[in-house]
Parts: sequence; C-alpha cells; structure tokens
Amino acid sequence: MPAYATNMRLKFPIVALTLEIITIILFAVFTTYDDGKGHGHDAHSNETHQENPMELYPMFQDVHVMIFIGFGFLMTFLKRYGFSSVGVNLLLAAFGLQWGLLMQGLWHMDDGKIKINIFKIINADFSTATVLISFGAVLGKTSPVQLLIMTVLEITIFSINEHLVANVLGANDVGASMIIHAFGAYFGLAVARVLYRPGLRNGHENDGSVYHSDMFAMIGTVFLWMFWPSFNSAIAEPGYPQLTAVINTYLSLATCVLSAYAISSLVEHKGKLDMVHIQNATLAGGVAVGTCADMNIEPFGAMMIGLVAGIISTLGFKFLTPILASNLGIQDTCGVHNLHGMPGILGGLAGIVAVSLGKKEGGNAAMQAAALASSLGFALVGGAITGLIMKLPIWGQPPDQNCFDDSIYWEVPEEEEENEESLTHADHSKNKAEA
Amino acid sequence: MPAYATNMRLKFPIVALTLEIITIILFAVFTTYDDGKGHGHDAHSNETHQENPMELYPMFQDVHVMIFIGFGFLMTFLKRYGFSSVGVNLLLAAFGLQWGLLMQGLWHMDDGKIKINIFKIINADFSTATVLISFGAVLGKTSPVQLLIMTVLEITIFSINEHLVANVLGANDVGASMIIHAFGAYFGLAVARVLYRPGLRNGHENDGSVYHSDMFAMIGTVFLWMFWPSFNSAIAEPGYPQLTAVINTYLSLATCVLSAYAISSLVEHKGKLDMVHIQNATLAGGVAVGTCADMNIEPFGAMMIGLVAGIISTLGFKFLTPILASNLGIQDTCGVHNLHGMPGILGGLAGIVAVSLGKKEGGNAAMQAAALASSLGFALVGGAITGLIMKLPIWGQPPDQNCFDDSIYWEVPEEEEENEESLTHADHSKNKAEA
Amino acid sequence: MPAYATNMRLKFPIVALTLEIITIILFAVFTTYDDGKGHGHDAHSNETHQENPMELYPMFQDVHVMIFIGFGFLMTFLKRYGFSSVGVNLLLAAFGLQWGLLMQGLWHMDDGKIKINIFKIINADFSTATVLISFGAVLGKTSPVQLLIMTVLEITIFSINEHLVANVLGANDVGASMIIHAFGAYFGLAVARVLYRPGLRNGHENDGSVYHSDMFAMIGTVFLWMFWPSFNSAIAEPGYPQLTAVINTYLSLATCVLSAYAISSLVEHKGKLDMVHIQNATLAGGVAVGTCADMNIEPFGAMMIGLVAGIISTLGFKFLTPILASNLGIQDTCGVHNLHGMPGILGGLAGIVAVSLGKKEGGNAAMQAAALASSLGFALVGGAITGLIMKLPIWGQPPDQNCFDDSIYWEVPEEEEENEESLTHADHSKNKAEA
Repeated sequence: MPAYATNMRLKFPIVALTLEIITIILFAVFTTYDDGKGHGHDAHSNETHQENPMELYPMFQDVHVMIFIGFGFLMTFLKRYGFSSVGVNLLLAAFGLQWGLLMQGLWHMDDGKIKINIFKIINADFSTATVLISFGAVLGKTSPVQLLIMTVLEITIFSINEHLVANVLGANDVGASMIIHAFGAYFGLAVARVLYRPGLRNGHENDGSVYHSDMFAMIGTVFLWMFWPSFNSAIAEPGYPQLTAVINTYLSLATCVLSAYAISSLVEHKGKLDMVHIQNATLAGGVAVGTCADMNIEPFGAMMIGLVAGIISTLGFKFLTPILASNLGIQDTCGVHNLHGMPGILGGLAGIVAVSLGKKEGGNAAMQAAALASSLGFALVGGAITGLIMKLPIWGQPPDQNCFDDSIYWEVPEEEEENEESLTHADHSKNKAEA
Repeated sequence: MPAYATNMRLKFPIVALTLEIITIILFAVFTTYDDGKGHGHDAHSNETHQENPMELYPMFQDVHVMIFIGFGFLMTFLKRYGFSSVGVNLLLAAFGLQWGLLMQGLWHMDDGKIKINIFKIINADFSTATVLISFGAVLGKTSPVQLLIMTVLEITIFSINEHLVANVLGANDVGASMIIHAFGAYFGLAVARVLYRPGLRNGHENDGSVYHSDMFAMIGTVFLWMFWPSFNSAIAEPGYPQLTAVINTYLSLATCVLSAYAISSLVEHKGKLDMVHIQNATLAGGVAVGTCADMNIEPFGAMMIGLVAGIISTLGFKFLTPILASNLGIQDTCGVHNLHGMPGILGGLAGIVAVSLGKKEGGNAAMQAAALASSLGFALVGGAITGLIMKLPIWGQPPDQNCFDDSIYWEVPEEEEENEESLTHADHSKNKAEA
Repeated sequence: MPAYATNMRLKFPIVALTLEIITIILFAVFTTYDDGKGHGHDAHSNETHQENPMELYPMFQDVHVMIFIGFGFLMTFLKRYGFSSVGVNLLLAAFGLQWGLLMQGLWHMDDGKIKINIFKIINADFSTATVLISFGAVLGKTSPVQLLIMTVLEITIFSINEHLVANVLGANDVGASMIIHAFGAYFGLAVARVLYRPGLRNGHENDGSVYHSDMFAMIGTVFLWMFWPSFNSAIAEPGYPQLTAVINTYLSLATCVLSAYAISSLVEHKGKLDMVHIQNATLAGGVAVGTCADMNIEPFGAMMIGLVAGIISTLGFKFLTPILASNLGIQDTCGVHNLHGMPGILGGLAGIVAVSLGKKEGGNAAMQAAALASSLGFALVGGAITGLIMKLPIWGQPPDQNCFDDSIYWEVPEEEEENEESLTHADHSKNKAEA
C-alpha cells in the first residue's frame, strides 16, 4: 500500500515544475500588460485606473500582506508545524495567484488577451485566500502535493462561482463573505470530511500550541485584523463607497474584538481568555461585514454585525468544533468553520437583509440569496470531489502518527532530531508493512 | 478582602459587553459616514479630502500598524507576559478607537452628527496611543478590567486636553510630543504611583526577558521605528509641510539610533549593548521631533533633536528608572518615562524654541508653553484620579506573586502547567486567607 | 596582540558618535528640504513629484520595511545571533541612509544644496541595501565597529558606481540587479575572503539554526518577498512603466517560489524541503528580474527569469557554497552569493539580452554590459580594500570561538548566562595569552 509513501523526492518536484511550466505556457499565450487601451468591457479597471494605473497599489500590498503574512502566520500556532504553515502557505499562494490570474482572467479577455493590472492581481491574491482557508481545515494532515492539487481545483471552481455570482447573478459581495470566506470554509470542510482520519479521533499530541507558537500566530492575527479594511474595500467603487467599506470594516472588527474577548472569558475555566478564540474570533467581524461593507448600513449596523460575529465564532470554537469532529467526522484543524464558515454565512444573510432594506442601490435580495446558495453548493460539491481526488493514495499524505509534524516534509534543525528519528522508525515500520 | 478575586468570569464579560453596547448606542445616535458634503468647520477634512476621501488611507494603515503591532509587540519583551502584551493591547486599542471616535468627534459635529472619515479614524487610533503608553507603565500589574476602565477615562481626559491645546490655545503639536507622548507617559506614571506595590520593591522573577521574548519585542520596535514618519505627518498640512514632517522624523530617528547605541555601549558592562535600550531609546527621536516635525527646523535641526533624545532616553533607563522606583514609588514596567515622558517634554520644549525662532508661521511660543503645561497637568491629575478608581478592590487586580504572568488571565499551553498549578495554589491560599 | 580586544566600551561609542556628528555637520552645510522649486536637472523628482511631493510615500514605506524588517529578520536564522542580526541591521541601515543621502546627493545638488524629498530617501534606503547584503556574507564574524566602517566605505563606493552606471553609461537597472545586488554580494564576498578564518573551516556549533530562529527568519523572507515589487518599481517612470515593473516582479517571484521548492526537494534527503533554500532562494526571482523589471519582456518572460533564478539559487546553496568555503576561502554566512550574487548577474545578463531584443526604448546593450562589469569591478576591488581596512586589529573583531554569538557584544538574558560565563572565561584566557 503506497498511501504513506511520504518521500517527496520525485513526486513533489515533478508536480510543482509541471504545473509551473504549463502555467508559464498559458501566460505566454494568454496574457500581456494592461496598457490602458482596452475596450472597456471591464468597466472597473478602465474607468478607474486609466488615469493612474498604480492607484490601487497600496491596497494591493495590504491584501498581499494578509495573504502571505496573515494567513501564513495565523496557522503557525501548532507547536511543531510552523515551517509547513508559513512555508506551504507561501507555496500555495505563490502558485495560486498565477492560476487565479488565468482562471479569473479568462472571463474578461480583451483582444484575446488577459491584460494584467493592479485590479487583476488583487483579485488573483483574493482567489488564493479560498485555498488558504481550506488549507486551515486540513492543516497537518495533507502533503504539499495534495495541497497543490487542491489549489488548482479549488481556484478553478472558485472562478466559475465568482463569475456566476458577480456577472450572471449580479449579486453584491464586495468583501467576499460568500464567494471567498463561506466558499473556502465549506470547500475545506468537505475535503476534510472525505479525508476523515479515525486514528485522530482522540487527538494527537502535536495538535496543540506552545507559548511561542501562539505568539507567532498572533503576528498573523494582528496583520489580518489591521488590513481587513483593505481586503473589504480594495475592489469597491472608488471614492465614498470605498470609504464606507473601510469604515464599516474598521468598526465591525473593533466591536468583534470586545465580543470575542467577553465570550471567551465567559465560557472558559475561571474566566480566562483562550488564545484560540483571540487568534481567530476577533477576525470574524471582518468576514461577516464583507458582503455589506460598501452598503449604507450605518456605522452602528456594522458594529452590530461585528458584535454577533464575535459571539457566534467564539461559541463555535468552544461548542461546535468538537461536535463536528466527533459526530460528523469533520476534523477542522484551525476551526475555519468558526472564523470563515459561519461568519461568511452571517455576512451573506446580512447582505440579503441590507439589500431588502434598500441599503444598496440596484441590489436584489433574491440574487443575494442565490449567490449564497451557489457559493455553498459549489463549495460542498467541489470540495467533496476534490477531496476524493486528494484521497488517491499516490500523493504522499502523512500517516496518522506523523500528522502535525514538520519533520516529515522538512529538514528540521538538530534539536528536533530525536523526533526526526522516531519518525524515521515509523517510516521503516511502515515500509516493512508495505513490503 | 476581595482585592485578589482574579476570576474574571463574570466581571470581565459584563464590563466589556456593557461598554460595547453603550458605545454602539452612542454610535447609532451620533455618527454617520462622511459624505463630503459637510459645512466645512473642520477645515482640514474638507479642504483636503473632498476630492479623494481615501487620500490619507496609506498613512492610516501605517499608524494602524504602529498601534496594533508596534505597541503590542514592543511590550512582549517580558518572558511570561506575551499573551497579555499583544492580546490586551488589541483589546484596549479596539475599544479605545471606538471611544476616541466619539470623544474627539463630539467637538467637531456637523448637523448633530460625527461624520466619520479617514482623518477621524487616524485621530481615533492616535487617541488609543495614550492608553497604550500608560499601559506600558502598569504592564503586568493590572487586570483587563482595570485597563478597560483606564481606557475610558484616559481617552475622555485626553480628548478634553487635545481640544484645549489644538482649538483653544491654537498650539502646534503635529506629531503629538505633548498631547500623546508626554500626556500618556505622565498619566501612566501617576496611575503607577497610586497603584504602587511595595511587594515588588525587590523585583519579581518574571519581570525580565528571555532571548525569544526580546526578539518578539524587536518586531514592535522596528515597526514603530519605520512608520513613525507616518505618525508625525499623517495630519500635517498636505503637500510640502507633510513632506517636511516625514523628512524630519526620518532623520531624527536615524540619528537617535546612533546615539542610543553609543550611550548603551558606554554605560553597560564591558561596552555591551542592552536590548532594553535598543528596543526603546531608538524610538525617542520620533517622540521628541513630534511637535517640530512640520516646522522648518532644517534637516540638521531634526537630527540634533534625535541625537539628544537618544542620549537622555538611554541614560534615563540606566539611571533614572531605578531611582523613580526606589525613591518615588513609581514602578514603570516598560520605562515609558524614558521613551515617551522625557522625550515628549523635550519635544514640547523644542517646539517652544522653534516657534520663538519663527520656524512655524503663526506660531506662538507662549501658547506652546501653555500646551505643554496643560498636557502635563491633565495627565498628572487625570492619572491620579484614574489610579484611585482603578485601585478599588473590585476589578480583579493580580496579587504580587502573580504579576507579570499570563496564566492568571489566560489559558496557557501545557508546558506552562506547572506554573499554572503554583498559581492555583497561590489562589487557594489567598482564598483561605479571605475566608 | 589586541586583535581580540572585544570590549567595545570606548571604541564603539567614539566611532559611532564621531561618525554621527560629522554627518550632522555635513547635513547642516549641504542639505535642505525639497521645496519643489528646483532647477530641474533631476528630471525624475521634478517632473513627477512637483504636484504631489508625497506620491511615492507608500512605495518608500514598503522599501523601508524591506530594509529594516526584511533584511533584519532574514538574518535571524542563526540560533544565537538574533540580537545582532536585527539590531546591528538597524544600526547599519540607520547610519547608512544618512551617509547615502549625502553620497548620492552630492551628484545632484541644486544651488549648492541636496534637496531632500521622497525620491531621495528611497534611494538612501536603497544604498543601505548594499551594506546589508555584504553584512550577510560576514554575519557572525565581525564587530559593530568593523561594520560601521564597512558601511561608510561601501556606500561611498556604491555611490560612485551608481553615478557611473546611471548617469555616465546611461544603463538601465531599475530594480538594481547589478548596482545593488551583484555589487553588494561581491563586495561582501571580497571582504569575507580577506577576513578568511581558517579556524572556522570545520564549522562552528553556533553557525546553524534552531526551530524558532528559522521562524523569525521567515518573517524577514516573507516581507522581502511581498514588497519586492515596490523595490523594483519605486523609481521607475510613473504610470505604465511602473505598473510593468510591479507585474514583472510579482510574477517572477511567484514562479521562483515553485522552482526553489521543487529543486530543494529534489536535492535534499528523502525529498524534504530545506529552510535555508525556502528562506533565500524564493527571493532570487526578485533580484534577477530587477534590471528588466520595467522592460516589455512580457509576463512569461519575467516568469522564465524567476524560474531560472530559483533553480540556480537553490543549487548554489546546495553545491557551490561549500566549494567556495573550502576551495576559495570564502565563508559566506548567509549565502549571499546564491541570493544576490548569481541572481544579480543573471539579472544583468537578462538586461543585456532584453535591450538587444529592443525591449527597452533607447537601451544600449553595450552600456548594459559595461554597467555589469563596472558593478562587479567596483565591488571586488572596493570590497578587497575595505576588507583590508576592516582587518586592522583595532576594531574589536571576535575570536573564532565567540563567532555567531550575541553575548560577545550584547547583554543577553539570564538563561544564556552559562554561555556568557564560558565566553568570559574564553576572554580571560585570551587576556592571559595577551599578557
């Protein structure tokens, strides 16, 4: 049985280089620089950026930091999985943004070419966010090869759903509560369900944090928290709608911190704060206000969304995650259901309500509801199919005992050598079993 | 005696949620988005931002990073207090920016509303800086509930003094040497004096750093250092005055690094550098050049301010902090007197001199002096009153032996469990004593 | 023999303060603020920034983060040299930017003054990058005093070569593959050759990483990776050429990640990834695309440069670095030859090819080749001379056994005291030997 053939020596280089070379060829055929002389079917990029093609660049860099530092370090909370968290995050996002540029750009070609500009690279970064959210659900239990395959499939499916939601349904989702957060979370949960590991039912000694790993994770949390207003406003209409998106997100996040801390203290032993909640639930306000971010929901409306998001996210970590694992076989390493799943749905529902109340000119509540349903449907079906492909026993997934451990795919410094050896022994016994 | 009833289970959630709900109600009544159609009494926001309401957004994000990463990680130098440093920093700043928006906005209403824009959220972030500076003085010796109360009171008092200085006295303080740095420091020192703990006279085993905690603190230092030009120029007049503020701050900080390193080496054993000085005194140049930042003091003038700031700050850490603790009963955990207090006064004095020399059009040296006096007066009186309120034995402050220790208010990972237990024992014996 | 008189108590403060005071005097004589009324010989700064002198400010801050966080944390990978890496990085860059403003500004004076603006402070930050690259080659084996001397000499020589390349030869090097990366690398390697330490031929127990130090280094890697598009485009022509520089760099870096990971896995034991490669070779794409960044090489051209850069950089770490050390006596601590040296030359060569193919209006392939030759020549000769001066036995360089150890120049927290003592003993025996 080759399921645990975790030696990546040929598999990984072949898969990575093959994907990259195919991508370069597609770029050679389909892409060029935006020269500002397009035919204007992409209203946003033409109207706005013709005059100064660099106008959105600072927003882009904020989003870039969220993708590479934010997501990367947020997942370093595990005691022995920091290299993989920040390193594989870099790998997936670096490939994903290339693939996303192609998949999203195919719907918006101009003279047969995808014309790359800042608006498009922001969207490319966005497309990787779906993968990084799903990565959180399966963190520690998948090989880099499996995750590269997930990247290709998830971004492809994401791009179809995004096109459907934005261009066919004409729904509003400026901060992507539905098409990124809910989509990425339920896609990842579907993958996790398919990859269910009964052997981890009773936990794993490495599936936890140490003091310093929690500190590294806070780097990710705080950068995500700070730059979330850029995430939710980057592709808003320039001017006052963009300002509205910034203010709503700023206030929703600030409020969410208070409710996440309060509920964490309320449900924990002796009223203590729990780092898992602080690292994650404080961000739920950014997710949940996404769909409504550029709508006239008034500052206090944004704050109420943030307040509720912090509460349900913290309660989800405390009560729902254990139930999902034990009853439904969904082992959600980072609790993406609590940070992206439920708050994403909350964001979608808030969008339906806000549009119904006339808070967005030209909005249509039915289309908002259809967008939410579409995002969840594509996520669950796409995630399940992707999970089945990832489950094929040829991609080098780790055996249960080596989950949550960098040393299976990384050279780790000497001090870790003892564990390294125990891993090697485990491999040997596996190999014997295979023989 | 309930002084050490550190169980936060009800206290903290009730205080946090009550404050947040009151705040949301006030936002519902008093705030809306800036739509660019104001009556123009707030000259700055109208003249400048009417055309592009997002113009200051990159500056805002730099300031945001200073508040949440800069201050948060700067205080992680303590070996067992990293969760509290970065986590409570997030809590206080997230609540403080909401409260600051209200308190500062009340002086600048338009049609009965505070119209939120980027300029106002930069100022809201600024208002939290005062609290985070004061937090440094009492770090490790206060509960989250005490600190939330300090946040409400300090920002309220700050907003009164700021209005007096900027609008009544008409003094210049673009980089806020006086109204933020000196104010925050002396407010915090007054609180620390009232909360004096004789039991910590001979130090505390956890009141120190370890190698990795010093590395985390450097993340805070370097982000503060890099983005300080944004802090000092964010609300300067657009165009060349803003450029002047950037250049003066950039050069003052660069010079300050050299003098801080030189003096650290000069006063330490065998000429070695001391991380406490490097983490803090290298920033004094940013504080001290604040008031003069947008004045025509010429590049070398800014550099001389930075040179002196680095020297007095380092000497303060070495010689003054121990004296304040032993002779005046002021236990200043982070040495905010050296980083914000003395350099803030230096900044105020440099402003008086620069205005006297005609370096600022329309400046008035007497008003500058009055602004400095007002800031110090409000800080000392306000801090003392706030300290008395914080001293009420109902806010869950930690007993001496549990100071500087995350595990009293946080769930800490397993490896720390032994200390956790010793804490529990300490609590038990306390409870017996109370019984 | 005073070679190992590592007590910095007088040496360091005297050198640092003397340099700083000379610099302040030069600033007083030669500098003022740009007021937008220059005579226009510096076409870029006048044409572009007259209208909004702050236009490049967000780009400047990105570059600033690369210099102070990026380079600083990238070098923290060593297990016991984090204070020096991030702390001495701050020292050298803070002094270097002042010196660079003067040295570069001397070629562009206006009415006898260097008129400081954002464009000039970006270039000042750039000039420090050369020093920080060279610092990587000699990391752990040099004293702060030696490094301050290197800073003065290297930036002076850099400024001459830069003037020659940009203004005399008129060569293109917008992202500075040649004048910063190749120059800084070969300068540092020449210094390292002169300072060759036979005693470190068989390695040093502290010349390696631990788990957490590798995590800190990833902070540096990721910030460099994210903001490299700003580095390569900051001084490009505004508008579409700047957009081109961003897109080329973004895509080259993304591609480089895939090839660096693939080759790392291919050459390592059992196909595991090596943190040294991930921390460094993923950045080679940014270096190598520098010269061509603003040329019309098309997106796939940039990607091919990134692909090749990731391959040669990873192979260099694996196979070339050991050979350079053992056969040529070049002990390159951080492997700057692989990250900056070879990719810098690759960038210069790619520039020659691109200009030959007409990808840059007005470009001249011969001048490109001359620029590459000039950069390498100045680097090797300048580095050798600088190395000889640094070798003078009066600058407090560390003895072999105390290399790669913070405690020789820094107060380190208690837990490290044992090592501290062993160091002290080593010093004593040294002193005896000297007596």
